[in-house]
Amino acid sequence: MQLQAPARGFKSAEFSTRTKSAQEKMAIDGLDGILLMSEPDVRYFTGFHTLFWQSPTRPWFVFVPLEGKPIAVIPEIGAALMRQSWLDDVRTWSAPAPTDDGISLLTDLLSPLASNAATIGVMKGHETFLRMPLGDWERLIAALPGLKIADATGIVQSLRIVKSEAEIEKLSYICSVGSDAFAQVPNFAKEGMPLETVFREFRRTAIGQGADDSPYVVGAADQGGYADVISPPSQRPLQSGDVLMMDTGCTWDGYFCDFDRNWAIGHASDDAKQAYDVLWRATQAGIDASRVGNTCRDLFESMSSVIAELDKSGGDIGRLGHGLGMQLTEQPSHAIFDETVLKENMVLTIEPSLAYGNGLMMVHEENIVITADGARLLTERAPEELPVI
Amino acid sequence: MQLQAPARGFKSAEFSTRTKSAQEKMAIDGLDGILLMSEPDVRYFTGFHTLFWQSPTRPWFVFVPLEGKPIAVIPEIGAALMRQSWLDDVRTWSAPAPTDDGISLLTDLLSPLASNAATIGVMKGHETFLRMPLGDWERLIAALPGLKIADATGIVQSLRIVKSEAEIEKLSYICSVGSDAFAQVPNFAKEGMPLETVFREFRRTAIGQGADDSPYVVGAADQGGYADVISPPSQRPLQSGDVLMMDTGCTWDGYFCDFDRNWAIGHASDDAKQAYDVLWRATQAGIDASRVGNTCRDLFESMSSVIAELDKSGGDIGRLGHGLGMQLTEQPSHAIFDETVLKENMVLTIEPSLAYGNGLMMVHEENIVITADGARLLTERAPEELPVI
Repeated sequence: MQLQAPARGFKSAEFSTRTKSAQEKMAIDGLDGILLMSEPDVRYFTGFHTLFWQSPTRPWFVFVPLEGKPIAVIPEIGAALMRQSWLDDVRTWSAPAPTDDGISLLTDLLSPLASNAATIGVMKGHETFLRMPLGDWERLIAALPGLKIADATGIVQSLRIVKSEAEIEKLSYICSVGSDAFAQVPNFAKEGMPLETVFREFRRTAIGQGADDSPYVVGAADQGGYADVISPPSQRPLQSGDVLMMDTGCTWDGYFCDFDRNWAIGHASDDAKQAYDVLWRATQAGIDASRVGNTCRDLFESMSSVIAELDKSGGDIGRLGHGLGMQLTEQPSHAIFDETVLKENMVLTIEPSLAYGNGLMMVHEENIVITADGARLLTERAPEELPVI
Repeated sequence: MQLQAPARGFKSAEFSTRTKSAQEKMAIDGLDGILLMSEPDVRYFTGFHTLFWQSPTRPWFVFVPLEGKPIAVIPEIGAALMRQSWLDDVRTWSAPAPTDDGISLLTDLLSPLASNAATIGVMKGHETFLRMPLGDWERLIAALPGLKIADATGIVQSLRIVKSEAEIEKLSYICSVGSDAFAQVPNFAKEGMPLETVFREFRRTAIGQGADDSPYVVGAADQGGYADVISPPSQRPLQSGDVLMMDTGCTWDGYFCDFDRNWAIGHASDDAKQAYDVLWRATQAGIDASRVGNTCRDLFESMSSVIAELDKSGGDIGRLGHGLGMQLTEQPSHAIFDETVLKENMVLTIEPSLAYGNGLMMVHEENIVITADGARLLTERAPEELPVI
């Protein structure tokens, strides 16, 4: 059942809390500031929320000092919006300016730190990018002799991985919207309908239900099952005997759901039913293992022990779920290598997959939040048996 | 009038032509290969097309050698899809693997070049990012002593800036879909409707018309005009006397339209009418100046001379249009600093803007392709007078 939409945005206190938490960690790690430049990191500390990031033309920077509010160094086109945030210091330039896209402004800002041989953090680790031209980065560093650069990935990700109550409200809402959109699939998906049309109708449905957008819709449909889960849809019409899978990332107020559903068209093969059953139980094992104090590795092992009933390969996807929030996929990873300890208010996907039959694969996915009493489902649980349309 | 959808994808010959063109330029510039890692660059040379890039977890690499086909170094989850491409050599690892996300595979691939003190290109220039963790990049370079790194931005952008016939067909189609979606706005946008709902209906309409998605929908509505063009929509209901603007990037088969439309709700103020008129004529001046041999600077000046009738400031957006293709915004920029000479088959936005009244701004935008005979409109031209809903 779809929830009521919560309030958009956040109270200023949320941003000051996030900033203070980062500053405490910076003090422990010996950092004098963190320079951020990716959409979710900038939004996390400022609330700056715009689709304009889809244009690769302009870089955007936010510097979180050891004390005080973050400082924005951004293209003038974003000034009006950033000045509505809780920040006081918004420095702008007329971008694009290929010979100086914010580099002089950043140099001015960071020169005092460089003179003191200070250390600043940037995001250099797993799941991060340098969201500015590499050449500009090299020029900036060269212009700041003495400045030491450390990796701030751990600090920022350790904050973002645990969601606030307001974030959980947004995530709960978009998961309920996604659940209602999936519930409508049997109303429009029919034998003979091209997969492309099924995807298109799903997007229209999700947006109609209240999603701001449905940017991620992938999946497949083929006889007895599917072999690929990241392709765009084909124009092949749904046929009796197909297994249809759709995986969606819908957004509301900048927060994602990320889960999938499977359906058989007309009838289901025994192999597909069995794969579905194993995955449903693997998902349940993952949900049951999602308790404070367990690790992501524990979660992985709880699921893989069920998956092994049918598939002992361990799969090629590399993990069985991940964090969820402002990005479709976030830290941590439910994988053998990830010893992250589960904490209250982490929001996660539970996403087992397996190979079966002749080169087929199946995926299941639910979204949960970790509470003191274990996992709370944010998505409406998939039916226990492969549903037939 | 909406065009017929062309074929999806490209013939292999298109990718081999692009690769050979890059290799000719690499030979001239003394590069022994180019390492690519961003979605549009990888897709340009391989056809690898998936929404999975929305997940930041995994890096993806394609190496274009001086001779022969590109080589993919990608997560195993993408192998099935990449093996459908024209590439023969697809190397994979089980990702995510935070301690070695492709770095060993890239080191193996590039070591022979490093031993010969060869030079490879990466995208380091304007409008590019490092789409891998900075820490991994530093580790990769450290593992390849002797390898020289040059900037390949000019090579890749000089190819991508001129579109093939097949690309122009895709761009023409999505522009026609966007035009038809905008034509329907007066059918659903009404006084009293929250702006958020107007945006939602626009997305549903565009997708219903045939867009694969409508990832970029921004705009504003307020009394007599708007002051900000990159914000998410508010929940404020449309009021008589508002000027409503929507700017959209819709996609089809991985290609974007990018244009906007303005409407007055109920009635239009004289100021808004005048701003609209000046911008319509500035757009026309830009279209008329879009001739082979003119520069982007000429285009900028043709528009700004009309804009100056009302606004002599030059504006803060930094440019009056840009290239269009696999990305919402691409090279070149219609700006004072851009001396790019217009060539046949460049696809461009013509996007003048101006400030007027008390802190208001207005934007207009059309999409064109440069032909031997001048500009051909891909979008249905906006009406000459501000339309009233």
